[in-house]
Amino acid sequence: MKGNKENSNGSNTQMMKVENGDDGYVLEDVPHLNDYLDGLPTYPNPLRSNPAYSVVKQYFVNDDDTVPQKVVVHKDSPRGTHFRRAGPRQKVYFSSDEVHACIVTCGGLCPGLNTVIRELVCALYHMYGVTRVLGIEGGYRGFYSRNTISLTPKIVNDIHKRGGTILGTSRGGHDTMKIVDSIQDRGINQVYIIGGDGTQKGAAVIFEEVRRRGLKVAIAGIPKTIDNDIPVIDRSFGFDTAVEEAQRAINAAHVEAESAENGVGVVKLMGRYCGFIAMYATLASRDVDVCLIPESPFYLEGEGGLFEYVEKRLKEDGHMVIVIAEGAGQDLLDKELGLGKEQDASGNKLLADNGLWVTQKIKDYFARKKLSLTLKYIDPTYMIRAIPSNASDSVYCTLLAQSCVHGAMAGYTGYTSGLVNGRQTYIPFNCINEKRNHVVITDRMWARLVSSTNQPSFLGSVVIAKAKEEEQPQTQLLDGENCNDEKINEIGTHEN
Amino acid sequence: MKGNKENSNGSNTQMMKVENGDDGYVLEDVPHLNDYLDGLPTYPNPLRSNPAYSVVKQYFVNDDDTVPQKVVVHKDSPRGTHFRRAGPRQKVYFSSDEVHACIVTCGGLCPGLNTVIRELVCALYHMYGVTRVLGIEGGYRGFYSRNTISLTPKIVNDIHKRGGTILGTSRGGHDTMKIVDSIQDRGINQVYIIGGDGTQKGAAVIFEEVRRRGLKVAIAGIPKTIDNDIPVIDRSFGFDTAVEEAQRAINAAHVEAESAENGVGVVKLMGRYCGFIAMYATLASRDVDVCLIPESPFYLEGEGGLFEYVEKRLKEDGHMVIVIAEGAGQDLLDKELGLGKEQDASGNKLLADNGLWVTQKIKDYFARKKLSLTLKYIDPTYMIRAIPSNASDSVYCTLLAQSCVHGAMAGYTGYTSGLVNGRQTYIPFNCINEKRNHVVITDRMWARLVSSTNQPSFLGSVVIAKAKEEEQPQTQLLDGENCNDEKINEIGTHEN
Amino acid sequence: MKGNKENSNGSNTQMMKVENGDDGYVLEDVPHLNDYLDGLPTYPNPLRSNPAYSVVKQYFVNDDDTVPQKVVVHKDSPRGTHFRRAGPRQKVYFSSDEVHACIVTCGGLCPGLNTVIRELVCALYHMYGVTRVLGIEGGYRGFYSRNTISLTPKIVNDIHKRGGTILGTSRGGHDTMKIVDSIQDRGINQVYIIGGDGTQKGAAVIFEEVRRRGLKVAIAGIPKTIDNDIPVIDRSFGFDTAVEEAQRAINAAHVEAESAENGVGVVKLMGRYCGFIAMYATLASRDVDVCLIPESPFYLEGEGGLFEYVEKRLKEDGHMVIVIAEGAGQDLLDKELGLGKEQDASGNKLLADNGLWVTQKIKDYFARKKLSLTLKYIDPTYMIRAIPSNASDSVYCTLLAQSCVHGAMAGYTGYTSGLVNGRQTYIPFNCINEKRNHVVITDRMWARLVSSTNQPSFLGSVVIAKAKEEEQPQTQLLDGENCNDEKINEIGTHEN
Amino acid sequence: MKGNKENSNGSNTQMMKVENGDDGYVLEDVPHLNDYLDGLPTYPNPLRSNPAYSVVKQYFVNDDDTVPQKVVVHKDSPRGTHFRRAGPRQKVYFSSDEVHACIVTCGGLCPGLNTVIRELVCALYHMYGVTRVLGIEGGYRGFYSRNTISLTPKIVNDIHKRGGTILGTSRGGHDTMKIVDSIQDRGINQVYIIGGDGTQKGAAVIFEEVRRRGLKVAIAGIPKTIDNDIPVIDRSFGFDTAVEEAQRAINAAHVEAESAENGVGVVKLMGRYCGFIAMYATLASRDVDVCLIPESPFYLEGEGGLFEYVEKRLKEDGHMVIVIAEGAGQDLLDKELGLGKEQDASGNKLLADNGLWVTQKIKDYFARKKLSLTLKYIDPTYMIRAIPSNASDSVYCTLLAQSCVHGAMAGYTGYTSGLVNGRQTYIPFNCINEKRNHVVITDRMWARLVSSTNQPSFLGSVVIAKAKEEEQPQTQLLDGENCNDEKINEIGTHEN
Repeated sequence: MKGNKENSNGSNTQMMKVENGDDGYVLEDVPHLNDYLDGLPTYPNPLRSNPAYSVVKQYFVNDDDTVPQKVVVHKDSPRGTHFRRAGPRQKVYFSSDEVHACIVTCGGLCPGLNTVIRELVCALYHMYGVTRVLGIEGGYRGFYSRNTISLTPKIVNDIHKRGGTILGTSRGGHDTMKIVDSIQDRGINQVYIIGGDGTQKGAAVIFEEVRRRGLKVAIAGIPKTIDNDIPVIDRSFGFDTAVEEAQRAINAAHVEAESAENGVGVVKLMGRYCGFIAMYATLASRDVDVCLIPESPFYLEGEGGLFEYVEKRLKEDGHMVIVIAEGAGQDLLDKELGLGKEQDASGNKLLADNGLWVTQKIKDYFARKKLSLTLKYIDPTYMIRAIPSNASDSVYCTLLAQSCVHGAMAGYTGYTSGLVNGRQTYIPFNCINEKRNHVVITDRMWARLVSSTNQPSFLGSVVIAKAKEEEQPQTQLLDGENCNDEKINEIGTHEN
Repeated sequence: MKGNKENSNGSNTQMMKVENGDDGYVLEDVPHLNDYLDGLPTYPNPLRSNPAYSVVKQYFVNDDDTVPQKVVVHKDSPRGTHFRRAGPRQKVYFSSDEVHACIVTCGGLCPGLNTVIRELVCALYHMYGVTRVLGIEGGYRGFYSRNTISLTPKIVNDIHKRGGTILGTSRGGHDTMKIVDSIQDRGINQVYIIGGDGTQKGAAVIFEEVRRRGLKVAIAGIPKTIDNDIPVIDRSFGFDTAVEEAQRAINAAHVEAESAENGVGVVKLMGRYCGFIAMYATLASRDVDVCLIPESPFYLEGEGGLFEYVEKRLKEDGHMVIVIAEGAGQDLLDKELGLGKEQDASGNKLLADNGLWVTQKIKDYFARKKLSLTLKYIDPTYMIRAIPSNASDSVYCTLLAQSCVHGAMAGYTGYTSGLVNGRQTYIPFNCINEKRNHVVITDRMWARLVSSTNQPSFLGSVVIAKAKEEEQPQTQLLDGENCNDEKINEIGTHEN
Repeated sequence: MKGNKENSNGSNTQMMKVENGDDGYVLEDVPHLNDYLDGLPTYPNPLRSNPAYSVVKQYFVNDDDTVPQKVVVHKDSPRGTHFRRAGPRQKVYFSSDEVHACIVTCGGLCPGLNTVIRELVCALYHMYGVTRVLGIEGGYRGFYSRNTISLTPKIVNDIHKRGGTILGTSRGGHDTMKIVDSIQDRGINQVYIIGGDGTQKGAAVIFEEVRRRGLKVAIAGIPKTIDNDIPVIDRSFGFDTAVEEAQRAINAAHVEAESAENGVGVVKLMGRYCGFIAMYATLASRDVDVCLIPESPFYLEGEGGLFEYVEKRLKEDGHMVIVIAEGAGQDLLDKELGLGKEQDASGNKLLADNGLWVTQKIKDYFARKKLSLTLKYIDPTYMIRAIPSNASDSVYCTLLAQSCVHGAMAGYTGYTSGLVNGRQTYIPFNCINEKRNHVVITDRMWARLVSSTNQPSFLGSVVIAKAKEEEQPQTQLLDGENCNDEKINEIGTHEN
Repeated sequence: MKGNKENSNGSNTQMMKVENGDDGYVLEDVPHLNDYLDGLPTYPNPLRSNPAYSVVKQYFVNDDDTVPQKVVVHKDSPRGTHFRRAGPRQKVYFSSDEVHACIVTCGGLCPGLNTVIRELVCALYHMYGVTRVLGIEGGYRGFYSRNTISLTPKIVNDIHKRGGTILGTSRGGHDTMKIVDSIQDRGINQVYIIGGDGTQKGAAVIFEEVRRRGLKVAIAGIPKTIDNDIPVIDRSFGFDTAVEEAQRAINAAHVEAESAENGVGVVKLMGRYCGFIAMYATLASRDVDVCLIPESPFYLEGEGGLFEYVEKRLKEDGHMVIVIAEGAGQDLLDKELGLGKEQDASGNKLLADNGLWVTQKIKDYFARKKLSLTLKYIDPTYMIRAIPSNASDSVYCTLLAQSCVHGAMAGYTGYTSGLVNGRQTYIPFNCINEKRNHVVITDRMWARLVSSTNQPSFLGSVVIAKAKEEEQPQTQLLDGENCNDEKINEIGTHEN
């Protein structure tokens, strides 16, 4: 086993592969089996002899290719953080016969899971001639407690047309030692882990243990979050599909509201810590009068509050639609319900149902004021999560899966595949595990929404000043800074 | 009128606003009313007083913000071509009262047209307080031959839920002098032109004439092409929706083929000069056995030809699906049918129906060989074009329209709005009018497709060598070069 | 005013128009303006001069045409109950100029409401030259408390593509005197009332009052119930659409269940007193493992109970789907929650949410037994109600509306339009108001479902014997008996 | 072998089981194995011990139950033709172990084919304990030229979610002797034949031959025709789904037409000899301006012709939609193209593409008159045929399949299952083979359409008089007459 060149203190070992260049160029590189194993043999990439690639000029990604995190630049601005470009390399570190891959899906459902599974299997078989691919069933705990299934192109051929995951999934169940033991026992040397931030943190720990034991095992993650709360990447797979499907619920709420006197339709959408689905669904629909998200605190009573706004809209239009992300207003609920810190098996804080809560609050208010109200509450969460990926997400899942396989074959490990500014890249675990993507309410996208709904900002002048001070607009946040400078404080992990 | 600072020769006047910086930084800038008009007054942007933007830190785009065309970089690579970032500016060159805007849609239908119209109107009204917005009916010729309609937020409120364009559209009808006369006569000072490459070329000529006359009129384009054949930009609006809807036709072809003995399903998809819809629809579907596109010449007879492949697939599987872009194999048809150079009103070369042709050829071949065959031909073109934009395209259309309005208000002119590497930019007309985006068959995306369908490459070794020599992979093509170095030879313009 | 020939006691005046014939032939006839008004002039039906009908042989329905309620017959069985066939008559009792019609929609949403409104308006305008049609807004209370809108073919032209009702709707608000006053004051002489059983009962009372006052006003009902709980008729409009749309929710529940360990998906569907939507949605889907409906009492604990069955299915398959109609198991809830007899404005008993209740019960059971369980609960009610009618329901709504107009023009009153054995008929109010349609669990359709799901019958032998004794299979129930022999005991009315 | 009691001349042997009763009651009965085989043993129906049926009172259909063909009756009208009610009988003529069933699908695709296959298999397995069910692949010719597949509930479990037929299908290939030899050789004793009228005629001949040979083999048909052209039955499975799916194409045509100057959208829909899909799709859509069907001859030139109408509509509205059934105007094409009598393998006359033809004619006319025109032609045929059945058709397919199995088990043969006035019945082959259902243009449904589109009747006064004379409105046609009194003259058979 090769000495750990870059860093020797255990806790931050992943973060060390940072390379600097001129003009503020920074490369957040990903680990490689080579980093801790000596004398690994390499092989020519089998794609060379694949007829499909016969015409391709420069099929193999140049080892120096990188992609900047920041694309809004000035003439003289520093070049900032870059990530290694994903794609096939000239040399691979596994022979086709040698590879024994496994795939596991963890956490909540998300459109496209089956597509990713299908494409991992197909990429391994058709591009690299790998014929041993195991499916681990039922999430992390499937490593030590359940049977596996053998995955072949034939078995996965039609699965992308179905929602869910054929491997099954679960929360939690992460016992690093038992998982790595199981990997070793079964002789697995490529591990593809599809899951949310909790899962990717688990993957990081598995990677550390694999490295500690000096195993030739590539650990690769594919970030899955329907909420789109994973940082660095452009969007997570399934997000587009979810926003599309959310339109049905919003339409229904709109129809119900319009057909009643003082009709209010309330739609709860996914988003525990971030309001991306709610925001994009609202922007796409244009039938929404107020969109409540976790990032933008709101209040009910008094001037500029929700009640006043609802009353005003009903007076003006006779009906309205409210979209609420599942994490919006949790501070208000916590205060009111005195909720503690209970968590589910993934470590997610248990949230009270803010949709039911806010509808009851509005009903109470109107009852108190003796105003008529017809309120309909729709929670389409499971109907959204369970559909198959749409065409756009399907193509995205394909690229993600292929990139991921190229990386493991090339000997990279401890990375997730991700789209950065439209390019497939390899991102070190720490860059996506230590922050969480969220809607920046001082950014223009949110202003666009507020402008289109005409909703109140719910912010007093003090709050605004504070928000401007504390928050950085998203594009700034991404501009030229190391990706690990802002820690997530929440202990819990998120998988919807 | 201010002298034309940058350039005095008529033909290339748009191309001149090129700025250079260090490390190979190039900015392809767009014209500004200021370039040829002196002493224009400016006003504070009305968004300053919009409550929705009260919280926004740095709402206004920094004038120095630019977006690189090239995002795959090396540590030491030159910085390359950049475009001006779109978005609201501190100062505007029109007062709200002064603006008299008009909107025109030209060429074939595309999902999202109504969404763009809606959002242009809403951005003008709600963001900038502009209340005079005209809809020009029936394309360019509507400028001089038809009535206009007054567009208000109320009128356009629900139009995004319908396909088509409420303004109507047509091909051709472009008489620059009459159009500019009409603009002048009506007192219009912001012209929003939504259309394909023929339309954008027309817009460029209108811009030139407006400048020649010294009019304070902003000419702004929004590129519309369901085929995605416009260069520089990430994708055109409606493309995602089209690929999604194409799945229905491919599914149907698959079912028909599977249910018959020696069943072949043939689906013709849009794409006169480029095969993007065919390629993405094929990648998303995974039920396609061969995808024929204009960029990849194919042949029917003999070894490695289409007939041989079809026969082989039917022998192996009993059924197959063929996707053919409308422009694929036109060289073969031209040769066979002795077609001339007829063009439609937009200047598009008239294409013979290659879908019907290829199906007849396959039938003849099987009849000659006395093999049974059940072939079903599906042409879903109009069913795809006529649907409303999906959620993803709807949000995209919103940003595109808002960016476009911000630009005109800020005094920019002679530009199209476009998404470059995920950011809204202003692109000078020449950069999108002089080339056409196409599938690069020596690039990895096409190899991916060929690999997933297992179709033959249809290329002899000589051809391959030539292709590698001549073509540049797309990412290279876009890397660091001025955008105007590769002229379109085709006289015809394309609007599907 | 003509003396009431048939019957003089007030309460049952509608039921008296029963005609008997040979072989047990019974006609349940509907009232006619002629019954209580003398010397009404008649006019030739304007359809005679409508060019569309120029080719039609026998366009006008023969006055003797009737439709049997019973279609399963024996060689010698009595002929049984018949209804008057709907359709245009040779003579009409209103001149086109004289008609002043109004339309009102009451109760919950149902796919097709707008289609019915559209087609009533179009039939009045295009078939009968009637140009005065009022829309009463917001249900019954719109008669005396709100503005009306003038309905024209142009206004209603596209409304069938939207869900909901453009007239708005509400529950309750029925004050007979005020409504008839309003009818008189406004000079309305044809009243089209679209609503559920509560609404139709209201219509019956309005009819009685109109007759009492001797007004020349036709009162016509169109039964609306997404639950399909209206007796006599084949199915209610919107039912097909609802069953179709319910498939989405069941699919989602199936995907969620399949992807989890011990996954249970629970879907609540409409059906306060009858389980038709749940039953047909289950039969159409085939992914459901147990379907719980109000008509089939079930129990949770012990042998043959729901818990035992859920545990067994999970042991066998690892996942399952439960469909529960909103009224199923209400007896259990009432007992447990000690619920009283609270009612909503329509007089509907307020139901506790049995879906949430049953999911909690199952969770508790599995927690007690320390078995793992992943349960997802989906309530798609408002997403189903709010969609537009599908093609089949749209055609049905057209026929229903046209039939209804033909009846009023022909002078009939106090009737609802309804499809009986595939034919449009006029049914006296009492026949549909005094019973409620429900799933007959001793009939074959339910047995079919139980057989396909393999669910337990939840019935002890005593219960079975009792059920067989008490209930009549549906086809028997409908066979040859007067329609008014089985009273509804529930005070409440039903509108979902 | 028992003597043929009823009739000894070969050709009409099926028609003889006619029973007469009082009041003009006629029963068109179906053959029974008992008719020609002596001493067949019977068994108690296994459903007796099925727990799902434990509660069912009168589960078994009374042997005397019949269903009238005519449901519009007068007080004194004769009772007319009846059919035997379908459903399980007390006694069955096959033991479960003895049954060896096979299923074959013939002709064109139709939504619901897989659902019917699934439900036949499930009914045989789950209701009757039959475990030997063969799938004949690729239509009739699969009996002697191809492999079979063994069908189990597991294999067919999910097939209803896919379009097409898992068994494959083909036209023609009917060699009675070889088929019956194959049946005998394989020991098959229940044959389920799903197909259109050509197929059902084939089934009738197979039945005759089976009877001639004295085999204990039940021959049962399930009528399949997306066109709905099979007489007697209420509607054919898949029809509802097809009408629904046709809406997409009509919507697209409407959008294309609206967005162009003088825009015309033309949609071709299925219907070789009858216009039901075109008619219902037009009624459901309401965006159609003229619907052309085979039953209503039309002409192009001159007063009252199509050209005049198109020109008028464009002048009035600027756009229009034309729906044309594939068989409409074939007389005009034949005359013009001098077409002969070519037939396809099913014996269907080859039709020229009337959609392309009519669009060319309209273009020529407008070119001659130098009027602008933008015409878009959509042929969604295969996209409609290939989708899975919607919920309503799925339930219908289930009942149809179960009824069919009950009949064969009960010893009936030589019948098709069919819905008559909402009830499942057994219909002798001759009743559905000798006529063809078609739109009666002197009936009210067609008048309704003509009235709603405002299209010309295309009929001179002479033609009208003749039509009224010759044709009987459909409800009359069905009233009280033997079903075999009107022969089909066309030699060809129809399977779309």
